[in-house]
Amino acid sequence: MTERLLELLEEKKYQEAGKILKDMMPADAAALLSEMPEAKMPLVFRLLPKELAADAFAYMDPDIQELLVKAFNDRELDEVMSGLFLDDAVDMLEEMPANVVKRVLSHVDAGTRKMINQILNYPKDSAGSIMTMEYVDLKGSMTVAQAFERIRSTGIEKETVYTCYVTDSRRKLEGIVTVKDLLLSPQEEVIRNIMETNVKFVSTHTDQEEAARQLSKYDFLAIPVVDAEERLVGIVTVDDAIDVIQEETTEDIEKMAAITPSDRPYMKTSVLSTWKKRVPWLLLLMISATFTSAIISNFEGALAASVVLTGFIPMLMDTGGNSGSQSSITVIRGLSLGEIRYRDVPKLVGKEITVALLCGGTLAAANFLKLMLIDRVTLPVAAVVCATLLCVVLVSNLVGSTLPILAKRLGFDPAVMASPFITTIVDAVALLIYFNIAKLVLGI
Amino acid sequence: MTERLLELLEEKKYQEAGKILKDMMPADAAALLSEMPEAKMPLVFRLLPKELAADAFAYMDPDIQELLVKAFNDRELDEVMSGLFLDDAVDMLEEMPANVVKRVLSHVDAGTRKMINQILNYPKDSAGSIMTMEYVDLKGSMTVAQAFERIRSTGIEKETVYTCYVTDSRRKLEGIVTVKDLLLSPQEEVIRNIMETNVKFVSTHTDQEEAARQLSKYDFLAIPVVDAEERLVGIVTVDDAIDVIQEETTEDIEKMAAITPSDRPYMKTSVLSTWKKRVPWLLLLMISATFTSAIISNFEGALAASVVLTGFIPMLMDTGGNSGSQSSITVIRGLSLGEIRYRDVPKLVGKEITVALLCGGTLAAANFLKLMLIDRVTLPVAAVVCATLLCVVLVSNLVGSTLPILAKRLGFDPAVMASPFITTIVDAVALLIYFNIAKLVLGI
Repeated sequence: MTERLLELLEEKKYQEAGKILKDMMPADAAALLSEMPEAKMPLVFRLLPKELAADAFAYMDPDIQELLVKAFNDRELDEVMSGLFLDDAVDMLEEMPANVVKRVLSHVDAGTRKMINQILNYPKDSAGSIMTMEYVDLKGSMTVAQAFERIRSTGIEKETVYTCYVTDSRRKLEGIVTVKDLLLSPQEEVIRNIMETNVKFVSTHTDQEEAARQLSKYDFLAIPVVDAEERLVGIVTVDDAIDVIQEETTEDIEKMAAITPSDRPYMKTSVLSTWKKRVPWLLLLMISATFTSAIISNFEGALAASVVLTGFIPMLMDTGGNSGSQSSITVIRGLSLGEIRYRDVPKLVGKEITVALLCGGTLAAANFLKLMLIDRVTLPVAAVVCATLLCVVLVSNLVGSTLPILAKRLGFDPAVMASPFITTIVDAVALLIYFNIAKLVLGI
Repeated sequence: MTERLLELLEEKKYQEAGKILKDMMPADAAALLSEMPEAKMPLVFRLLPKELAADAFAYMDPDIQELLVKAFNDRELDEVMSGLFLDDAVDMLEEMPANVVKRVLSHVDAGTRKMINQILNYPKDSAGSIMTMEYVDLKGSMTVAQAFERIRSTGIEKETVYTCYVTDSRRKLEGIVTVKDLLLSPQEEVIRNIMETNVKFVSTHTDQEEAARQLSKYDFLAIPVVDAEERLVGIVTVDDAIDVIQEETTEDIEKMAAITPSDRPYMKTSVLSTWKKRVPWLLLLMISATFTSAIISNFEGALAASVVLTGFIPMLMDTGGNSGSQSSITVIRGLSLGEIRYRDVPKLVGKEITVALLCGGTLAAANFLKLMLIDRVTLPVAAVVCATLLCVVLVSNLVGSTLPILAKRLGFDPAVMASPFITTIVDAVALLIYFNIAKLVLGI
């Protein structure tokens, strides 16, 4: 598809190119446009039918949006801005330089400008910053017929019409009513009698991840957002909630790998900013690893006396790191999905200890056989290695399962307590256990 | 809340307990019930108002559903089954023992039983296995008024009414029309004229993750599912798509931590099955780590000649593991979100090399200063350590970024190529580089 379009553009067959584009889904048109060379993007955009162009614009990456906005004349900018939903407009503006924002805002009406500025003022990653103000509001005294009338007259500009919000004269949220309820009720029924008054909502300052989690928990299509005075100010829709869930998971995964998270996809991040996101953690972890080196130096005498012991250091450290990350990542994901709560901690620790004894025991037994039959080391050396293995797995699981919970308790993100940090801690502990058991058993 | 309810049950104040429960959201009622001691669960369930009871039932974990079904009398089972949506009923049955499934199926009507059996027959993790057949279907020749009539008469049992599917006489999908479109069109308009004919759909055998990704990509509330003859057989709704996204991400994360993934939440998994999910990988990785030990044994002579070198082994191995996991996890997540495609590979590898040189260079420089000023090792030793560091980071990033892509190309899940495996490979490579550079520079 990409090649065909490029060919048509090359041959200046714009009408045929337009035919390819005109029946695409907005998301697909956006993806196709982003495959074009930058110089051709404004041209391709202009080939899209007007409505599709505005819809596709919402699906584009911020850097492409910026490029297009800069290429737009005033009329084009007007058209795109009037076709954009409020939350998509805000998403776009959040990423743009101030002078572009100023030009864009001069092309929307005063009411919209006020709403955009309000949303831009909410803290990053809050429910307020991802909500839209384009919802259908009804009054409790309306009839079903009047409600449909209101949806018909205002609905075309609303991001969702399927859940309507019933507010009082001071904009306080009184209830919600779905279009399904409306369709299944008689035309003359009063909204107050059919609305659901037990309404779940979040506040403008609620974390966006929490808002998404609430929406998903209750299987909503949108969740209302209220301000400090409990007045309805907006809604977060399910499509944005899915995006939040994906973004926050990516952030968690990046933190687990000791990378400073960013909003931009990997292929769009410059080498320099990738370096900036990775190198501080590598440095920090490298410095922490020198403790491990210090421990080894401390026991240099013992190692020189029994050089065979050195060979097992990597295996012991790796196994500790591996079982520690199994525990920590299980706990981090459980915390993030809300499956593990503080009161589960005693049960959880008990479980990790039992699992550690089982896993450590299995590994020690397997290793013992290998040490005696294949490596043919002495019995005391085998005993030292296997006892260390059991202890290391036990300590790793304890450290791995409790540190993420501790981090959360202290207000940090549990995800930073994943493999890299656990590995560094476990490495040092593993060596201390190893050398002390060796000293005890081998008397070196 | 939990304590208060338990207290009321203890004091047999069932009416008051019922009052607490009656206004809860289904998801909350399900969560509260799951906090109760098992013996009290059927009692609490019976205190719920009928409609809430059926709705809450859909939100419960399979083990609690099974417990309740076993406690139900025939009338209760009838009520719950008739209140359940088809896909929720299937979810429940998938997890139950055969004799319970048989009893449950004897309590649904023949039509529903046929649909349930059909869905149960689709492969696990396919779009067919998570779809529902309860959608609104329209004919192209209907008017908007007739369409509303059909929604009103059948809608109460449908999971979503907001997207309606237009099919021909052979159930082939012709188009879709949303309730928003219907509301904004004149009553006498014919559906064929307003329906969207460019319809995205998935097949019953499409992977459920792919179905969820398509739905999220196009911001749909539901995506149609067709059979091999392109006849419409069901739809996957957005709430189920979110669950799929969360489950598949958990699976990915578990694989990244070298754990065999399972469907059950951690706190509900027995110690024995947790052990079974973890120990094979630990064993496999432990055996792989013995290669590292073999390498060290091979160079025992060199190490004995320059004992100071041993101290840097953990730092070099850890740094390799850390930068390798940074690369691999970035690539795995990018592949899973569809942000990285095969044709991006050359660009990606180039980028990883540059980043590796930058990161490795920074680490080597920092380490050189520390070695000379704090550790006060000889210049040749410092040179060996720093040169190794640079090489190790380079190799780690190459291995970390290419192995997940290779895994995907070969049809495996890229997620298994995360930290633990990368670490094991990188450890061995790091040592080989280290000892060879040491031999070269120090002549040992």
